[in-house]
Amino acid sequence: MRSNPRGLVPTLEVAPGKSLYESNVLGEYLEDHYTDHKPHLLPSDTYERARSRIWIDFVTSRVIPAFHRLLQFQPGSYEGDSAARLDGLRAELRKYLLEYTAEMADASQGPFFAGRDIGLVDIALVPFAVRLWVFDEFKGGLGIPEKGKGGEDGEKWERWRVWMNAVEQRETVKKTTSDKEHYLPIYKRYADDVAQSEMAKASRAGRGVP
Amino acid sequence: MRSNPRGLVPTLEVAPGKSLYESNVLGEYLEDHYTDHKPHLLPSDTYERARSRIWIDFVTSRVIPAFHRLLQFQPGSYEGDSAARLDGLRAELRKYLLEYTAEMADASQGPFFAGRDIGLVDIALVPFAVRLWVFDEFKGGLGIPEKGKGGEDGEKWERWRVWMNAVEQRETVKKTTSDKEHYLPIYKRYADDVAQSEMAKASRAGRGVP
Repeated sequence: MRSNPRGLVPTLEVAPGKSLYESNVLGEYLEDHYTDHKPHLLPSDTYERARSRIWIDFVTSRVIPAFHRLLQFQPGSYEGDSAARLDGLRAELRKYLLEYTAEMADASQGPFFAGRDIGLVDIALVPFAVRLWVFDEFKGGLGIPEKGKGGEDGEKWERWRVWMNAVEQRETVKKTTSDKEHYLPIYKRYADDVAQSEMAKASRAGRGVP
Repeated sequence: MRSNPRGLVPTLEVAPGKSLYESNVLGEYLEDHYTDHKPHLLPSDTYERARSRIWIDFVTSRVIPAFHRLLQFQPGSYEGDSAARLDGLRAELRKYLLEYTAEMADASQGPFFAGRDIGLVDIALVPFAVRLWVFDEFKGGLGIPEKGKGGEDGEKWERWRVWMNAVEQRETVKKTTSDKEHYLPIYKRYADDVAQSEMAKASRAGRGVP
């Protein structure tokens, strides 16, 4: 709370009394500050930089709220057709993942959003992408079609799997991901809609990322 | 819709088939692309750049939704103490404006957020700041205390007024602001909560900036 009045992680204290927070702001800071670090986390072309930022914003304003709406949905207390609502929430999240996927470079250029190298636009989504198993665990699945299925969206989901596999194989992702058993009780509180994090409360109030 | 699938303004077509959108993304693009333009719209110090982005995010995630919650609030159809709710919504917006103001450079350094020169963090708030009169018109006022009043917050509101005056005197602001009469019917639709913009619909659904 001393470092970040919003009480959220991640928070980065760059010097005593100088704290920064907000995941995407921190990503931009690391890119700005460590100018010699390669690969860069944003493209050098100004149009492509802006396009990356549009899709970072898309993750924050669309994907993450939809992730939490589905995760925290309570069929038991929903007034109306809860099965239809659950399907609608699943479809909404899948639609956003496909919209993001459709913006990726062709897989022949590399697995990541911009092709060969991972960047901020990938990093914004990774923490949620590697936790999609929570929907299998708690909400009857997300409904991403299996390989070879998926109809007219089949190719996009294939591109999604290329991205997902590349993400999961990164050492940085492995080293910052705990065993599923560790997450289960945490996500169960979200799935039961009793979590008390600022994100959970914002989602419960129908709001976006706090 | 061809240039921006979200159907929102502003949208900037930088080349045929290459469109950018999202106000804050466009601000960053202009700063990235026109590298020789002075004054720069973000500080050169990496910590201060990041701090600007935190407060740009604050405008998007806090101020603008609170602006719309108050503007679109319907006392007549509110279940509960609508006067108390209205006061609460006013207090919420004032609180956010004061939090932003408290982050500004000392007025002795200049009127804007970072001091002498206007920047992206000012620009994010300007369109809403210059329309605060809508609350006088439609919602019984916002309740910003007059000069010399305001109790323990009086100094912060004085700093707010320094900023506000500097903003209103800028030629770029004057040239992109229409007469109040032009806005009245538009904002009346918001105030009656019948506006059909994406922002109005998002606010009605309890969501953030679309």
